[in-house]
Amino acid sequence: MKLCRFGPAGQEKPGLVDADGRIRDLSAHVADIAADTLGADALARLGAIDPATLPLVAGDPRFGPCVGGTRHFVAIGLNYADHAAESNLPIPAEPVVFQKWVGCIQGPNDPVTIPRDSTKTDWEVELGVVIGKRASYVEEADALDHVAGYCVINDVSERHWQQERGATWDKGKGFPTFGPIGPWLVTQDEVGDPQALSMWLEVNGKRVQNGSTATMIFSVAQIIAYCSQFMTLEPGDVITTGTPPGVGLGQKPEPWYLKAGDRVELGIEKLGRQRQDFVAWARQD
Amino acid sequence: MKLCRFGPAGQEKPGLVDADGRIRDLSAHVADIAADTLGADALARLGAIDPATLPLVAGDPRFGPCVGGTRHFVAIGLNYADHAAESNLPIPAEPVVFQKWVGCIQGPNDPVTIPRDSTKTDWEVELGVVIGKRASYVEEADALDHVAGYCVINDVSERHWQQERGATWDKGKGFPTFGPIGPWLVTQDEVGDPQALSMWLEVNGKRVQNGSTATMIFSVAQIIAYCSQFMTLEPGDVITTGTPPGVGLGQKPEPWYLKAGDRVELGIEKLGRQRQDFVAWARQD
Repeated sequence: MKLCRFGPAGQEKPGLVDADGRIRDLSAHVADIAADTLGADALARLGAIDPATLPLVAGDPRFGPCVGGTRHFVAIGLNYADHAAESNLPIPAEPVVFQKWVGCIQGPNDPVTIPRDSTKTDWEVELGVVIGKRASYVEEADALDHVAGYCVINDVSERHWQQERGATWDKGKGFPTFGPIGPWLVTQDEVGDPQALSMWLEVNGKRVQNGSTATMIFSVAQIIAYCSQFMTLEPGDVITTGTPPGVGLGQKPEPWYLKAGDRVELGIEKLGRQRQDFVAWARQD
Repeated sequence: MKLCRFGPAGQEKPGLVDADGRIRDLSAHVADIAADTLGADALARLGAIDPATLPLVAGDPRFGPCVGGTRHFVAIGLNYADHAAESNLPIPAEPVVFQKWVGCIQGPNDPVTIPRDSTKTDWEVELGVVIGKRASYVEEADALDHVAGYCVINDVSERHWQQERGATWDKGKGFPTFGPIGPWLVTQDEVGDPQALSMWLEVNGKRVQNGSTATMIFSVAQIIAYCSQFMTLEPGDVITTGTPPGVGLGQKPEPWYLKAGDRVELGIEKLGRQRQDFVAWARQD
């Protein structure tokens, strides 16, 4: 099942993407795709609906982030061995955990703002995990029971802020618009093995990232079990699980970064694709 | 004006603490002490109410966190020169920014759980800043215009997880119950200069931290201006601004940490006090 949220920012409605790729309106059944909708029972109820009975959504609406009300936007760093190498950082002995500010979450095709004075705005295609069931001290063998589904995430990053401004990474990971999530939340049953998904990212049509979740250092199940020792994962929380090689920081012979006017497209097998136009910062208030 | 939230966890009502220290029920005027209540106009409306017209709250209710709906729990590290020294870390050239998971937020006097297998659970009395007005690229001179008020925070920390488990601090800062906030949100007009507040913390009646916000490396105004370059601060967001010397990690001749059965009390001038009993972890689900 492919779930989505469609409509203007902040007013998204819940939707279901049918077998023909058309959006159907779920508003009569649930208020939102969020914590209350993501448990196994709630998903089973949605799965029992005949999509043909749901109203078709006209036109080509905006996709919002595919999950609402996220309280924890957990991020895993250096989770592909080749990406650690291109970042000139050692392969971690245990997962690197940081946070993206939830205020950076936006729709998958919304423009991304290059911060004022930024010279190192970078891209990262990542597998997103949406939590469906509370997870505290979960064992690896049980970890996937806590997953509602998966989605595409661009973990947009400002490298100067992340790496050269002291101590922690959080500074460079959460500027507003740096968290495109979606277009769909694809439920686990439809995705199958999360460690066998190809993924890609292009900048202005040039393929820069080509990878697969098969080369993750720490699997989705290991990441959930690990994080659940340090915090309680709650329904609606999102974990972005690291990026394969090919980010701007790792380009040869020299790193290069995004500038206003660039277009980034990215996708993951079974999970759909995103497209973002990168724009210059301008005061909005 | 002293605002608070009282009642059972998850069902807190908004309250006002009158000149005699009694809680009065604000439910007839606002739904919660949260984003919508924290702007200058909203606070002025609350300030115009004669407390004598508000119902007195009977008994001795639990205090919840003094602000609800917090989306960003921002934390500043090493913001007192003497604490940086006791941590064997250099004085930072710019603020160290990390995040506490919002799921760790709780009332000021609720028990704190020592995580399973934890041996380095530590205390940190800190000045909390509650944001009242959206802040993006704010200048230092204007920064305090974005503050609703101040509160006491215990930035409970697991040092092994924070310092010895790789790369970032977030792991050791957000275990459930590690974020007691309150008892009161004291509005700026009543607090005056945030850089002239004495603060203290005791473990089992022994005074271990004695400090003043006067010795912060980066002031509240500087912290807000700084963070607003990397993220957008929103009403209801909380910044915890670092701790003075005297944490467990810095004890001489040897560090010592909290164990089940310990009681921690802490307070900040004008902002009230907290008391937490530390308890062993036990599975709750």
